[in-house]
Amino acid sequence: MKYVESRLRVRYKETDQMGIAHHANYLVWFEIGRTDLCRATGIPYTGIEARGYLLVVTGIGCEYRIPFRYDDEVLIRTSVAGWGSRMIKFAYDLYDGAAAERRAHGFTSHMWLDRETRKPVRADEDVARAFAAWR
Amino acid sequence: MKYVESRLRVRYKETDQMGIAHHANYLVWFEIGRTDLCRATGIPYTGIEARGYLLVVTGIGCEYRIPFRYDDEVLIRTSVAGWGSRMIKFAYDLYDGAAAERRAHGFTSHMWLDRETRKPVRADEDVARAFAAWR
Amino acid sequence: MKYVESRLRVRYKETDQMGIAHHANYLVWFEIGRTDLCRATGIPYTGIEARGYLLVVTGIGCEYRIPFRYDDEVLIRTSVAGWGSRMIKFAYDLYDGAAAERRAHGFTSHMWLDRETRKPVRADEDVARAFAAWR
Amino acid sequence: MKYVESRLRVRYKETDQMGIAHHANYLVWFEIGRTDLCRATGIPYTGIEARGYLLVVTGIGCEYRIPFRYDDEVLIRTSVAGWGSRMIKFAYDLYDGAAAERRAHGFTSHMWLDRETRKPVRADEDVARAFAAWR
Repeated sequence: MKYVESRLRVRYKETDQMGIAHHANYLVWFEIGRTDLCRATGIPYTGIEARGYLLVVTGIGCEYRIPFRYDDEVLIRTSVAGWGSRMIKFAYDLYDGAAAERRAHGFTSHMWLDRETRKPVRADEDVARAFAAWR
Repeated sequence: MKYVESRLRVRYKETDQMGIAHHANYLVWFEIGRTDLCRATGIPYTGIEARGYLLVVTGIGCEYRIPFRYDDEVLIRTSVAGWGSRMIKFAYDLYDGAAAERRAHGFTSHMWLDRETRKPVRADEDVARAFAAWR
Repeated sequence: MKYVESRLRVRYKETDQMGIAHHANYLVWFEIGRTDLCRATGIPYTGIEARGYLLVVTGIGCEYRIPFRYDDEVLIRTSVAGWGSRMIKFAYDLYDGAAAERRAHGFTSHMWLDRETRKPVRADEDVARAFAAWR
Repeated sequence: MKYVESRLRVRYKETDQMGIAHHANYLVWFEIGRTDLCRATGIPYTGIEARGYLLVVTGIGCEYRIPFRYDDEVLIRTSVAGWGSRMIKFAYDLYDGAAAERRAHGFTSHMWLDRETRKPVRADEDVARAFAAWR
């Protein structure tokens, strides 16, 4: 599976009183992976919105195996796990910085909306072509 | 299914540039529902940690149907959806303030850990009894 | 000084690994106080944006004396501390739920912007009148 | 003034419905700058906590001139603006990625606490020496 890699460090603000990164942050990290994958296709997410689309989230899931701590490096591998006429699904694997162990994995499902009407639409040809190499 | 209700209003900080509440906040709202359900059992979550447990998150899922906007009231109905010797699963339904439409629903799965060793443990008798009425 | 009171409970997500509410959340709590003060004037903040204004933040400050912990109740007292032709300043005092001790206090300064042009403007007569009782 | 540089990109989650990065995130970005400055002294912040200290926040301030948008690069320049027997103050300047314009600046004041007793203490010799070059 083809993927894009992103790296970040766990922020102090992202820890909670258990002393680990709070699980809700993983969705924010997924979004960073998604941003980087869009950039890699040649159509950055800012460009998607500029073309008049919104890529809204319709479903998410995540499984957590080993926690991350403050200042830990997180390696995200983002791939396209599904593609339909009006939807796209991304998958994410989170590793420690050395890529030695997968600590969590998850997915997000999205629908293409027209930015003005907020109705579901098909992505245009350019967008479909840009993502084609990643499906 | 027996549930506990919680209410909150969408914070400005919780919106994103789509003009809706960002999807990662739903996990934080789930946590509010979970806190309120624990309180209703008679063992508040602060009491769970005081007894030497952590209730870590092992998996989450959420489906999003209708967005919430800034200052919208959110009604959360939290229930216990699963119970095992070392785990507990909560389910959440999110409604508009008038409880007229379900806008999202999801779950979180948890493992009981010993707070010191961070190893999986069984919840003690008191805790098991407190949650029994909610299973 | 006339003020509006808001109450909230510290969310688990708002704690950090020091075991206290992270200082950045205080700005989010201030925003809740501000939302409630706007509602009390008769022009809720959603109404301010609907009239074509944005109330952007130009400066903030906060002093922290006693921390809040998970599930603590926070009492916010919000007042209008300054008013100019194109600006407004709010002040915030944060107390424990019993209002026994002030734990933090701060301010936020804002400019009225035209929502379309994003240029500074004067608030209209209705808005000025609504806030007049709070100056 | 000697400073450490950090770079980040504005996350989608960090935007709000005004279409700009929400002002509370600046405090989180400051914390990234502070983490990087500690690392540059040779005593990373994880090491400070490992030595038995907490560096709690006692005051903050920020002035906002030009907003950041989603996916904008943010350049942070962090310096030590004050040093006392039991306190330290950091200053932060936020620039666009090209360092062409300063968009915001702020400070955070901190007290050294003993991690166990949570009482104010002096930083030890090693820590004082590590920061000396940055004062």
